[in-house]
Amino acid sequence: MFEAAKLQRKVSKSDFKQQEVDLRTELLAMQRELKESGKSRIIVIITGVEGAGKGEVVNRLNEWMDARGIATYAFWQESDEERDHPRFWRFWRNLPGSGEIAIFFGGWYQKLIEERVLGNWDDERLSAEFRRIAGIERMLSEDGALILKFWYHMSEKDQRKRLKDLSRDDRSRWKMLPKKKQFSQHYEDYERIAERLIRHTDYGFAPWYIVEASDNRYRDLTTARTLLTVARKHMALRQNNCQINSEDNPNAEPDAPLSAEAQTTILDRIDLSKGLDRDDYRKQLEALQEEANELVWEAYNRKLATVLVFEGWDAGGKGGAIRRFTSAIDARLYRYISIAAPNDEEREHQYLWRFWRHVPAAGRVSIFDRSWYGRVLVERVEGFASEHEWRRAYNEINDFEGQLIDNGALVLKFWLHIDKDEQLRRFKEREKIPYKAHKITEEDWRNREKWDEYKHAVNEMVVRTSTNLAPWIIVPGNDKKYARVEVLRQICSHLKAHLKTHK
Amino acid sequence: MFEAAKLQRKVSKSDFKQQEVDLRTELLAMQRELKESGKSRIIVIITGVEGAGKGEVVNRLNEWMDARGIATYAFWQESDEERDHPRFWRFWRNLPGSGEIAIFFGGWYQKLIEERVLGNWDDERLSAEFRRIAGIERMLSEDGALILKFWYHMSEKDQRKRLKDLSRDDRSRWKMLPKKKQFSQHYEDYERIAERLIRHTDYGFAPWYIVEASDNRYRDLTTARTLLTVARKHMALRQNNCQINSEDNPNAEPDAPLSAEAQTTILDRIDLSKGLDRDDYRKQLEALQEEANELVWEAYNRKLATVLVFEGWDAGGKGGAIRRFTSAIDARLYRYISIAAPNDEEREHQYLWRFWRHVPAAGRVSIFDRSWYGRVLVERVEGFASEHEWRRAYNEINDFEGQLIDNGALVLKFWLHIDKDEQLRRFKEREKIPYKAHKITEEDWRNREKWDEYKHAVNEMVVRTSTNLAPWIIVPGNDKKYARVEVLRQICSHLKAHLKTHK
Repeated sequence: MFEAAKLQRKVSKSDFKQQEVDLRTELLAMQRELKESGKSRIIVIITGVEGAGKGEVVNRLNEWMDARGIATYAFWQESDEERDHPRFWRFWRNLPGSGEIAIFFGGWYQKLIEERVLGNWDDERLSAEFRRIAGIERMLSEDGALILKFWYHMSEKDQRKRLKDLSRDDRSRWKMLPKKKQFSQHYEDYERIAERLIRHTDYGFAPWYIVEASDNRYRDLTTARTLLTVARKHMALRQNNCQINSEDNPNAEPDAPLSAEAQTTILDRIDLSKGLDRDDYRKQLEALQEEANELVWEAYNRKLATVLVFEGWDAGGKGGAIRRFTSAIDARLYRYISIAAPNDEEREHQYLWRFWRHVPAAGRVSIFDRSWYGRVLVERVEGFASEHEWRRAYNEINDFEGQLIDNGALVLKFWLHIDKDEQLRRFKEREKIPYKAHKITEEDWRNREKWDEYKHAVNEMVVRTSTNLAPWIIVPGNDKKYARVEVLRQICSHLKAHLKTHK
Repeated sequence: MFEAAKLQRKVSKSDFKQQEVDLRTELLAMQRELKESGKSRIIVIITGVEGAGKGEVVNRLNEWMDARGIATYAFWQESDEERDHPRFWRFWRNLPGSGEIAIFFGGWYQKLIEERVLGNWDDERLSAEFRRIAGIERMLSEDGALILKFWYHMSEKDQRKRLKDLSRDDRSRWKMLPKKKQFSQHYEDYERIAERLIRHTDYGFAPWYIVEASDNRYRDLTTARTLLTVARKHMALRQNNCQINSEDNPNAEPDAPLSAEAQTTILDRIDLSKGLDRDDYRKQLEALQEEANELVWEAYNRKLATVLVFEGWDAGGKGGAIRRFTSAIDARLYRYISIAAPNDEEREHQYLWRFWRHVPAAGRVSIFDRSWYGRVLVERVEGFASEHEWRRAYNEINDFEGQLIDNGALVLKFWLHIDKDEQLRRFKEREKIPYKAHKITEEDWRNREKWDEYKHAVNEMVVRTSTNLAPWIIVPGNDKKYARVEVLRQICSHLKAHLKTHK
């Protein structure tokens, strides 16, 4: 989920200066319009990891906008009076009126994160709070409020550095940090709680925006641009008295600034130079295949199912990687399912119906060569699914995979990644070889033209569906040997870990 | 919640015969239309208490409709194959295609109820299942399916009688029943679980219909009429490609047959002949006031808040009943809040905002003379709130009261009930007495004309918002003395029980 918040996205000083003036003008215009229409109100919730500069963002928003229409509230300590009332009373007291903007520092999420990190609240208690929050956010949004929730994030390394810098000015902060050797553990715990929280409270009517916070300029511009874009969409809907559909995510990704470095996607950061020589390849392949065979048998005996999903660029090497795995394991244990366009009967049902048919029984392996992710890839890019359909598919897919996992299955998702040049080389090569020529069609060439759209779709797919329990694994595939071994290695290591945790 | 399923609603044999023919014709026409449009599908889920005749309903639906477009599935026992897959796999296998109807006997709810009754699953597990079910029902409905969920219910007495009758033909059934003295406990447990289940899985896109099952004719006609009405609305929406808003309840109440006895409401069953003579009144009043005073002080010391809501017909005696309570307790401990039309500031916020301001602090009492229930009473009947607004208010109100209860508060809601003649008598009396004349306005006379609409709104309000934890108490008010004593008695007994459970 946080993959896209660790890409070192940046905005240069000059780009910032250039974009700042327009942005401020537009923000003020938006605020005026909000005031005048009197049909909506905006609640901005600011949360994120320690050291992300949440306070700086709030100051920036106050600086850029008209302070008369904004009120900022921090919810650190409860007053006596607040403690004597239900938890949400303090928020109700400070809700913005029509035409106003309220910035809630930490919002109703602060307490959840703190109590969970401290171990005072368990997962069940958290679930109950998620339900409550859903009810309240839905109610406020039905009443015309726009609720924007920002989560500021950065890589462990960047956070460590940032906190060290901060500690120079402020000694007390430093004391709050866990000891150095515990830092990684703390970071991981925090990230896991945040993933759960965001996943369970991300609604169309109150979406989360995960913003990378390692560069201040990127962070602030992204926040303000997102606020601007979403507020405008929201006001246009309210102006037409449209009911905002609760599943419609007005703008699922934050609106990054218009500079190249700020537009980096997850795929751009993959190191495609990785390779393997023939000898190493043979040796490692053999060892891994042997291990895979044993692990799959053990999973069978233990009645644990495995679901492997393969997606990737055309000619990315999915088939070759799958064969290196299937040739190693007993044919009775797996099913290979190649997914093409749905047939008539499949079209009569919800799009997940045809995948449910191939869900593995306990102990078995299902290998999907393309999958339900078609909904948010080809169907999105080609317009076969409406925006409403593919947007809500992220949650549907997470629910679907969640059910498999709850039933004991291991779920792994591979994206076989190559660059555009490598694809061209492979297309041409295939066209030359008679028995491979059928693999290249007009469609492949057409898809290739939409490379950037697909890249964008892949980025959002990974952000929205890569979870602790069902991760996306992006495999550098320019070198086929490296990719095949890497796929096997990942299957083995995840399967081993899975067998361990499901004693 | 189940109050309206214990009213002994009936349909006579002749009424049944008369309505049956038309209904069947219309059902067949609906089915044809469903088939031809091919834009939706219908899933009917049949659940309810033991002995409610669920099997008979299913047979009736199959008899009345064209069997070629319906498939019925019972989900009693799992096959080996089903056990080897995730729980929902068996349902996915049997989902209806476009234009078809599937009847799911027990549906995905059967297992929840059984496991909870047997004590195998706890409330947390149940909550997780509710979330899952919400996801699946939302997904299917987004894809064009209409999901209708019926819960068949009857009073404890009727159920006991029914099961006894059944046991004559079927000896094995009898053995499954709990021993006589445990029957009441079993009935209550079952009802509590059902209330929780229905409350948490009642969505606009997949509403629950609670149908009284004590009379077979009423039960079957109501089921079929509801199916017909809701299916038609649904198809009309789909035909126009309208997005169905997830909070919009297409038809929150089952569609009762057109005979007088079938249209009975909760208020019609209240015994208004109850009275109290002056001496008894004085004696009881004094004792109860003394008790109330002590209990309120104890609640203060224990920091438990109390919320009392008074609603009722104009001139129903709310004010008098409230004064008998307030005159007994320390003025520092309570606040009396009289609710009129919202002011300008209040109108700028969500409608619950103005009530949040008056939520009692720990240990205090807030008395609401009229309340947030105006949303589903006067605002509904007078059209001040749109249907979408007042329909979603039921859930919003339940959430709101749930927060108060979670914070330790006792929440009681009184409806002061009188009949139309008594109201007229009181109106005229008031007009004669100078210092009371101001209490009767044009508006009161106008409201009076809408008596039946209000009665209907009260019925639905009680069904949707009376819960184990925040019950509606309907007080017969034709005799003022009886009503005042009864209100006090209820406050005392609930407060006493509340203090006991919150040690």
